[in-house]
Amino acid sequence: MTAIDSYATLDFDRARRCGFPEVVFGQGKTPEQVAAIASELAATHELALVTRATAEHAAALKAAEPDASYVQSCGILFIDRRPAPERITGTTCAEILSSASGQGKIVVCCAGTSDLPVAEEAAITACIMGSATTLLADVGVAGVHRILTQQELLASARVLVVVAGMEGALPSLVAGLVDVPVVAVPTSVGYGASFEGLAALLGMLTSCAGGVSVVNIDNGFGAGQIAHRINAPRWIKREEDR
Amino acid sequence: MTAIDSYATLDFDRARRCGFPEVVFGQGKTPEQVAAIASELAATHELALVTRATAEHAAALKAAEPDASYVQSCGILFIDRRPAPERITGTTCAEILSSASGQGKIVVCCAGTSDLPVAEEAAITACIMGSATTLLADVGVAGVHRILTQQELLASARVLVVVAGMEGALPSLVAGLVDVPVVAVPTSVGYGASFEGLAALLGMLTSCAGGVSVVNIDNGFGAGQIAHRINAPRWIKREEDR
Amino acid sequence: MTAIDSYATLDFDRARRCGFPEVVFGQGKTPEQVAAIASELAATHELALVTRATAEHAAALKAAEPDASYVQSCGILFIDRRPAPERITGTTCAEILSSASGQGKIVVCCAGTSDLPVAEEAAITACIMGSATTLLADVGVAGVHRILTQQELLASARVLVVVAGMEGALPSLVAGLVDVPVVAVPTSVGYGASFEGLAALLGMLTSCAGGVSVVNIDNGFGAGQIAHRINAPRWIKREEDR
Amino acid sequence: MTAIDSYATLDFDRARRCGFPEVVFGQGKTPEQVAAIASELAATHELALVTRATAEHAAALKAAEPDASYVQSCGILFIDRRPAPERITGTTCAEILSSASGQGKIVVCCAGTSDLPVAEEAAITACIMGSATTLLADVGVAGVHRILTQQELLASARVLVVVAGMEGALPSLVAGLVDVPVVAVPTSVGYGASFEGLAALLGMLTSCAGGVSVVNIDNGFGAGQIAHRINAPRWIKREEDR
Amino acid sequence: MTAIDSYATLDFDRARRCGFPEVVFGQGKTPEQVAAIASELAATHELALVTRATAEHAAALKAAEPDASYVQSCGILFIDRRPAPERITGTTCAEILSSASGQGKIVVCCAGTSDLPVAEEAAITACIMGSATTLLADVGVAGVHRILTQQELLASARVLVVVAGMEGALPSLVAGLVDVPVVAVPTSVGYGASFEGLAALLGMLTSCAGGVSVVNIDNGFGAGQIAHRINAPRWIKREEDR
Amino acid sequence: MTAIDSYATLDFDRARRCGFPEVVFGQGKTPEQVAAIASELAATHELALVTRATAEHAAALKAAEPDASYVQSCGILFIDRRPAPERITGTTCAEILSSASGQGKIVVCCAGTSDLPVAEEAAITACIMGSATTLLADVGVAGVHRILTQQELLASARVLVVVAGMEGALPSLVAGLVDVPVVAVPTSVGYGASFEGLAALLGMLTSCAGGVSVVNIDNGFGAGQIAHRINAPRWIKREEDR
Amino acid sequence: MTAIDSYATLDFDRARRCGFPEVVFGQGKTPEQVAAIASELAATHELALVTRATAEHAAALKAAEPDASYVQSCGILFIDRRPAPERITGTTCAEILSSASGQGKIVVCCAGTSDLPVAEEAAITACIMGSATTLLADVGVAGVHRILTQQELLASARVLVVVAGMEGALPSLVAGLVDVPVVAVPTSVGYGASFEGLAALLGMLTSCAGGVSVVNIDNGFGAGQIAHRINAPRWIKREEDR
Amino acid sequence: MTAIDSYATLDFDRARRCGFPEVVFGQGKTPEQVAAIASELAATHELALVTRATAEHAAALKAAEPDASYVQSCGILFIDRRPAPERITGTTCAEILSSASGQGKIVVCCAGTSDLPVAEEAAITACIMGSATTLLADVGVAGVHRILTQQELLASARVLVVVAGMEGALPSLVAGLVDVPVVAVPTSVGYGASFEGLAALLGMLTSCAGGVSVVNIDNGFGAGQIAHRINAPRWIKREEDR
Repeated sequence: MTAIDSYATLDFDRARRCGFPEVVFGQGKTPEQVAAIASELAATHELALVTRATAEHAAALKAAEPDASYVQSCGILFIDRRPAPERITGTTCAEILSSASGQGKIVVCCAGTSDLPVAEEAAITACIMGSATTLLADVGVAGVHRILTQQELLASARVLVVVAGMEGALPSLVAGLVDVPVVAVPTSVGYGASFEGLAALLGMLTSCAGGVSVVNIDNGFGAGQIAHRINAPRWIKREEDR
Repeated sequence: MTAIDSYATLDFDRARRCGFPEVVFGQGKTPEQVAAIASELAATHELALVTRATAEHAAALKAAEPDASYVQSCGILFIDRRPAPERITGTTCAEILSSASGQGKIVVCCAGTSDLPVAEEAAITACIMGSATTLLADVGVAGVHRILTQQELLASARVLVVVAGMEGALPSLVAGLVDVPVVAVPTSVGYGASFEGLAALLGMLTSCAGGVSVVNIDNGFGAGQIAHRINAPRWIKREEDR
Repeated sequence: MTAIDSYATLDFDRARRCGFPEVVFGQGKTPEQVAAIASELAATHELALVTRATAEHAAALKAAEPDASYVQSCGILFIDRRPAPERITGTTCAEILSSASGQGKIVVCCAGTSDLPVAEEAAITACIMGSATTLLADVGVAGVHRILTQQELLASARVLVVVAGMEGALPSLVAGLVDVPVVAVPTSVGYGASFEGLAALLGMLTSCAGGVSVVNIDNGFGAGQIAHRINAPRWIKREEDR
Repeated sequence: MTAIDSYATLDFDRARRCGFPEVVFGQGKTPEQVAAIASELAATHELALVTRATAEHAAALKAAEPDASYVQSCGILFIDRRPAPERITGTTCAEILSSASGQGKIVVCCAGTSDLPVAEEAAITACIMGSATTLLADVGVAGVHRILTQQELLASARVLVVVAGMEGALPSLVAGLVDVPVVAVPTSVGYGASFEGLAALLGMLTSCAGGVSVVNIDNGFGAGQIAHRINAPRWIKREEDR
Repeated sequence: MTAIDSYATLDFDRARRCGFPEVVFGQGKTPEQVAAIASELAATHELALVTRATAEHAAALKAAEPDASYVQSCGILFIDRRPAPERITGTTCAEILSSASGQGKIVVCCAGTSDLPVAEEAAITACIMGSATTLLADVGVAGVHRILTQQELLASARVLVVVAGMEGALPSLVAGLVDVPVVAVPTSVGYGASFEGLAALLGMLTSCAGGVSVVNIDNGFGAGQIAHRINAPRWIKREEDR
Repeated sequence: MTAIDSYATLDFDRARRCGFPEVVFGQGKTPEQVAAIASELAATHELALVTRATAEHAAALKAAEPDASYVQSCGILFIDRRPAPERITGTTCAEILSSASGQGKIVVCCAGTSDLPVAEEAAITACIMGSATTLLADVGVAGVHRILTQQELLASARVLVVVAGMEGALPSLVAGLVDVPVVAVPTSVGYGASFEGLAALLGMLTSCAGGVSVVNIDNGFGAGQIAHRINAPRWIKREEDR
Repeated sequence: MTAIDSYATLDFDRARRCGFPEVVFGQGKTPEQVAAIASELAATHELALVTRATAEHAAALKAAEPDASYVQSCGILFIDRRPAPERITGTTCAEILSSASGQGKIVVCCAGTSDLPVAEEAAITACIMGSATTLLADVGVAGVHRILTQQELLASARVLVVVAGMEGALPSLVAGLVDVPVVAVPTSVGYGASFEGLAALLGMLTSCAGGVSVVNIDNGFGAGQIAHRINAPRWIKREEDR
Repeated sequence: MTAIDSYATLDFDRARRCGFPEVVFGQGKTPEQVAAIASELAATHELALVTRATAEHAAALKAAEPDASYVQSCGILFIDRRPAPERITGTTCAEILSSASGQGKIVVCCAGTSDLPVAEEAAITACIMGSATTLLADVGVAGVHRILTQQELLASARVLVVVAGMEGALPSLVAGLVDVPVVAVPTSVGYGASFEGLAALLGMLTSCAGGVSVVNIDNGFGAGQIAHRINAPRWIKREEDR
């Protein structure tokens, strides 16, 4: 077995600097590496979050830490030992979102059913970081009444995360309806000229509507983290600390 | 002076095969070449249409054929000697559309003011070919109520031409509202990641809404011709001839 | 089991707005999701169409709805409970096209044998929507007499769908022979510099012939739907209703 | 002279929906069009903002509205007739930032001197919308001590805008130092493999640091607007209104 | 004035190795450089050929060598002091082709009038190298009868050069009609998705017809040289020499 | 079982027009389709050639036609029933090249061991069409003496086929040494910035040496056919027939 | 069994010209080919190095040469029969680096844990060529203190190899801290807009810091060899020989 | 007039950290900015180097500092007030290279005459930093004997800079002849598929020869600096200081 510091230099200071402990990117790591790193983070921070985790990653971590929780639909793996009400629990997105008692208000919406895993990754990320989060599925522009009937919900949010594949038109439409920031997430859903998310990415970057910023293709985690930084319970708390 | 057949092989049979005489693509031709070819076509067909014509092209043709007409805003140059009511006249898009007595119904709409030249090229092309055509400007998705209040007009059309630059989202939205074909035209309006129309092109090709087909970037002429073939007064007439 | 509305917002109004019920895009959905959505649509509309369906999707739907029909060669799965003569039946493209009694006339042709699955998807789509459709295979430009001897058939169509991979030259040639719209479908057939259909796509978008509009790579379904909207039995019927 | 509604459909409702009146994108519009639209907006909202304005645009607007102000270094043109302290004044970025009395705190920083026009566009946009804004120039990663010595300033911001061309590395570095959102703006500064900003754009989208979202290449305006929506004096005010 | 060997290492041996003296690529060279190099080559070989020459290049060379000849339409500049019948003369493509008494048979054809400069560059290159060459203009696939009526001419050639822009479909069609090699030349004629010749280039590389090889976009010179090497009077002569 | 004409329109006239019967592109066809088409071609022409054939294709054809021959290393499958000396035999490239008694002289050379399958496809294709062909392996530019010591062999050829992956520099070097045409074949050998052959393709298209034309990535078959058309025993024979 | 010279032309002179024997690129070669070539090289040079070797390659070589050594984590396979102290031994990167007694000083550092295999390939390559080499893992810019605390180590090196995926920002930062050359290696670590290493590659090529040169994506071997040529024990030795 | 610190944060410490003062990238800066920054640097370091300087930049700087020197052919502008023998003088590349008394040995060679400006930028940069530098022009692979006859010169260098446009094959060839590092510089010389240097860039990155690292397209400055860091008089001096 290889010592953890031969392959990783954990950044234990990140929680202080950036408001949340280092998050483990599971892709390309062995189950042993993921388990070792997540255990170490949990020991230090009462909290460990792994994204793009496979079933093998989950099994390896659960063997070491039986209280680890795995959301298969979007590859989120976590340990949460914080006291209530901060702690989140569950193995589906719905369970986790309703288990939380976050602050502020984030609304995550996605254009199609196949964009759902990315939207769930965003919602759970924001939720575990401490934001109250709602998820709205399958409201793409081909049937525009579906999103137009949700304007009250949209208006209640401090920030919106809008997830879409194919031509990625939903963020432009939504941004024209609200006065809060829209974090757009292109997905790789589509084929041919979608070029694995490139069409949606370019579309969102060139949106004719103001207030839209964009993250990497399929980067639900990144969108969730940014939305949380905008919604910002921690920032407010930090202010209070002073 | 060079003889016309050293640089061109005019296809006088095209009107019979394809329903409209050969159209001259002005770009990259000298004023003399454009003037000679257009004169020859007008002599044969009572009609000559030049696209992407410059002021120099127009001056050269008018010197030879004083009844030529030039629409500067979209670079259309034409001679129309057909008898009324087929003949069109005017030097602005508005004049030409109202001078015509075309059949059927085409609606051309564009997302922004800067997409207007392309939309005008489409509308005048369809009009000169014989289709009744209406133009609707600046109804992009950032203010979605602008297009939603036009649903009656959209529903009255046999075919729609939808022109948009930047992320090119308008065709997806429109196609979800109607049951007729939508011909989408991406424009090169935008900067940076619009990559001179590529973002709009990919967006339209990967539209999540059914019924959308696409032409080349800034190809208003092509869209007008396809819309006319769909609206198809000539086809109907041809049927009657049998 | 997850409730259908946690992952889908069915658009039951689409048949009214767009002339045909919502169509299910099978790719990326689980067999359970496809079966549930298709059953729900069939219950409402007497009709459900799934594209890019796998054998697993077909098995799951047939278990729930034994009258479902699967065309393996092009991944079309459908339930059709409409009364004759509207109803279509069969499990091969040939059976389905001959079972139908559609209106108007669509001709679908493809350049090579390997483009056939995409051409079949287009033909069956148009057929189930109500258009009379004919399919012509392996008539690419490398042996140009093959398409030239079919000019009478081409001339009889209200709209053509032309499917081609590699350099995608067939639509340009065909469009120069007819006066009806040509819907061009690039396919991913080829290798190297075809870049999975990009060469054919660019070629069709920049066609020197008028009257060609283009859909996404391998998008037989989209082409069939557009061709049907052009051929338009429903539109004619709607007119009659008034 | 052409009537304004033949080329534009002004969205006077946008201020209510999105918190700020429609902004005019100058590029590709004639001086007459810009002057007419800006005058109309100023008459309605006491405020008109034009981006990517040329000296000709400025001259045309000033002829009609002598109180218009033009910031040549970054192409911003505006009329501000709001009462103090909301009103901003000046013709350089420095004058405008110090004339304002905005709320909250935005820090805009750029990597090199040549990125300055984009950074100024962002800063002035945020400022005119109502945010207190600071600008920090030429602090790129090749001399990393320049940004490290500014950590106190960075920590005081509610949101950061980080502007960089070439490889666009600055946002990754900055995002690892703070717990607030970072809006990254790639610029077209560079040559060769920077591909007019593509290298910086891709780099920012794939940042290894959390909390970074991205706007279009050279889109200082967009970044300023998003930063303002995050900093959000208006949202806070709206809350108070309830 | 700078000595010629500070910027060029002339390859006087090339005529022996490759069958024709070094050819000067004019683009990016100063008039003085072009004049000096061409004079030096003419002194050694009785022949100097410059491609992509501007009027300034031509003037500089003519000042030094009054017998230099410039074909403005395609930027060819040459000095030919070989004895008749090898020598070519003239300042238009037509004059030059008819002045020559080359061996074998090359047919150069192009799809549209705007492809003519590239086709002329190919034809003159082959001609000056010693091949009998014929030029056929404006026979693109949109009016396929134009090329089909030229089959006898095509059949008489030892090699064909086929020049086309936009979708570049002509080589595929031609190659299916003959049993000799086809050298395909994509041109930058077109706009939008032609991406300055990329669409034609990819199309020609992925041709479904056998016997097509491709040169760089707008590379008429290269095609002419390859066609000559195939037609090969020199090679035959060399054989005879043995 | 499906009738052959439902999926293929065999072009039996191609041997007359193009000098060799239609060749079957195996990729994407079922074993049954390949076997049926190859049998039909062999029955008509005494010859059938399949490229990109898999072991399954070979097994299916051998079951029907036991005299079929399969070269596994490069996926060539063929039936040759022509009388000697035209007939070729063998199951390795070396056996086939030495079994043949072709006319003229083609030299195929490749840069690295991994380019060998493509080079073999070219060599066998030229050989079966009737050209005497020699193959030279692993003579890339990193050890330039390897090709320089082969100049006599290069000089003996009527045409060269040069195969290379990675940066694809070999054709430029070779073309500077000879006066015959060079057919360059980029291969997909390499990784990273070779982008599956794109680097080699672009390099060959922009060769600074004259006389190089290019075929698609990995298109050994195409290069062999073009080389044969240049070497041209059939063309010479046709001449003699007259 | 096939003779080695039918597929390879070994360049036994390379050690003299280039300072190190030919290295075998394992990818795309059969186990038999790799074993035969490596045995032949080891017999001539007492040393054989294979990169991108699989477990099958390793097994085949070990069967023939039991003293072969395989480093699975980065696919390095080698035989080293040189006398101590030149000889290296071991099957992990750590073992090999500490077994060596190389000259000069190379520091290899990588941004993340997943970049480690590429960094190891670089380090072992430099080590086997004769350079003293140190490896530093997981010091990316998101936690910039990790690299800043290593400045003394960086300053001790004659050359640095910096390995990074995603946005590839680390080389820019490091190059601004030192006065020695930085060899940057982009990796394919990342997803979406990293486009398999393209984002990192472009970022490194457009670095705002001086002193950075770049190798192909994932090309640890190339970087190691260049670093060794810079560090240059052999060059120094060669000097001494004179 | 604007104060220098409103647009620049000069990094006066860079000479200590990186061995040479900050260098000014002229492109995109005004003459005033360039003059002010260069004057400031010269006052501090006795030395100021500006790259990509225009004649306007030169005039502005000379007005302030009459001892500034401008090399028009490659856009280098500098002030050198160091004592002899370090000081360089002259306004052409040849003058400057011969004025210097640098240490070590760098050879810069370029493939064609049009690559010369980039090669000169590299040579002058290395020279001013303190390296003895030789320049060799027009030795591309199309006439391979030109470089092969220079092997003795190549062998004498501590490092080579190889500059080439079009297919960029020269570095691969050169790297196979030497045992020192090769810094490859792709140039934008070429047209069509060279895509402004992309073909050369990709070719150099995927070189089959070892020891090649690459800088940005047209980045002569970068290559000169890296070559100097490799040749490294300063590093040696620093060693001596210890």
